Amino acid sequence: MFKIKNIITISDYVTVINIVFGMLAILFQDFRFIYLAIVFDAMDGYVARKTNTVSDFGAELDSICDVVSFGVAPAYLLYYYFEGTFGLIASLIFLICGALRLARFGILDVRYFVGLPIPAGALILSVTCELFLKYNIVNYNLASIIVPILAIIFGLLMISDIRYPKYPNKIGMIIFAISLILALFGIFEPLAICAIGYVGYGILKWDIEK
Amino acid sequence: MFKIKNIITISDYVTVINIVFGMLAILFQDFRFIYLAIVFDAMDGYVARKTNTVSDFGAELDSICDVVSFGVAPAYLLYYYFEGTFGLIASLIFLICGALRLARFGILDVRYFVGLPIPAGALILSVTCELFLKYNIVNYNLASIIVPILAIIFGLLMISDIRYPKYPNKIGMIIFAISLILALFGIFEPLAICAIGYVGYGILKWDIEK
Repeated sequence: MFKIKNIITISDYVTVINIVFGMLAILFQDFRFIYLAIVFDAMDGYVARKTNTVSDFGAELDSICDVVSFGVAPAYLLYYYFEGTFGLIASLIFLICGALRLARFGILDVRYFVGLPIPAGALILSVTCELFLKYNIVNYNLASIIVPILAIIFGLLMISDIRYPKYPNKIGMIIFAISLILALFGIFEPLAICAIGYVGYGILKWDIEK
Repeated sequence: MFKIKNIITISDYVTVINIVFGMLAILFQDFRFIYLAIVFDAMDGYVARKTNTVSDFGAELDSICDVVSFGVAPAYLLYYYFEGTFGLIASLIFLICGALRLARFGILDVRYFVGLPIPAGALILSVTCELFLKYNIVNYNLASIIVPILAIIFGLLMISDIRYPKYPNKIGMIIFAISLILALFGIFEPLAICAIGYVGYGILKWDIEK
């Protein structure tokens, strides 16, 4: 009756937790669930390799869950908090770019990332929204134009040919992990610095896939 | 800079329209965008075959867009309109089942559908919500329990081994097309009958994949 359970492995359960957090971000309009989804997205690949359960099914499921947590969720929150025509257009463009990025990732096989990875795209968009909402960098009307423009730029970075490194070094990983935990407690500024640093690194290095 | 445009074909643009309508269903809380997404989901495969542009990229993109339009959108609208703990749990279960269904579809290669296809799952959930909202079949408090239970059943049908026919006959297609158009103008009852008929057909025939 449910033979599908025979192909679901332990790492797929971790992937399912990722999509659940993505959906909770949408249902409760909270960026922190996106940060939690990033944790479980990083874990599923690790668990799959460690338990020797890498599968086509798992790879498919991963892309399907990622578009929810890192495409729909941040795009929805962008429109939810900044509204308006600009917010709507940017929300749709970000999501489309995210979907295209994931589909290309599914057919490419390279040691580095071509284009900003979608979890990083979701992260930079989320922290950008949070920075503008918390610090009122500019007034709300202006932010409703600037944040959508930034969202479109992040979207285009995802479908660009700019190379991004795949695995950060150990120190980078530890700093990122601590920043993520702090963000879950509402202190998202260190995570914002990590995100801006990673996105900026790719742009400054400007190493384009030939 | 954007080499990805070389792999995007005409049918992929149709797929992108599908995800846009799925996102609009979420942003504007309107089931009719899900019905529109179904139209474009049916079209992209047709266009890909007619223009000889069937590709791995297109297949990946299709699953990625389908989870948004037929997983997240109806699950979101279920929670949006029926709220509460039951609504939340059912929303998450429906989405998880949809994601698993799509991942399995990506690795199977059969002439019929194993489990209720996700567009049909989205359709039956949408018309169920609309029926309960419009006709007040039971009072709202009771509907907030019954509709989530039905949503979970639809989710389980998607990951079940029940076989569903892939292509309806021509008369069936025409009836379905007319029902879809009527639903876009707010008359969703014929579409509801189509959806209940298709879902019921699979259950009554009870032809389980060995």
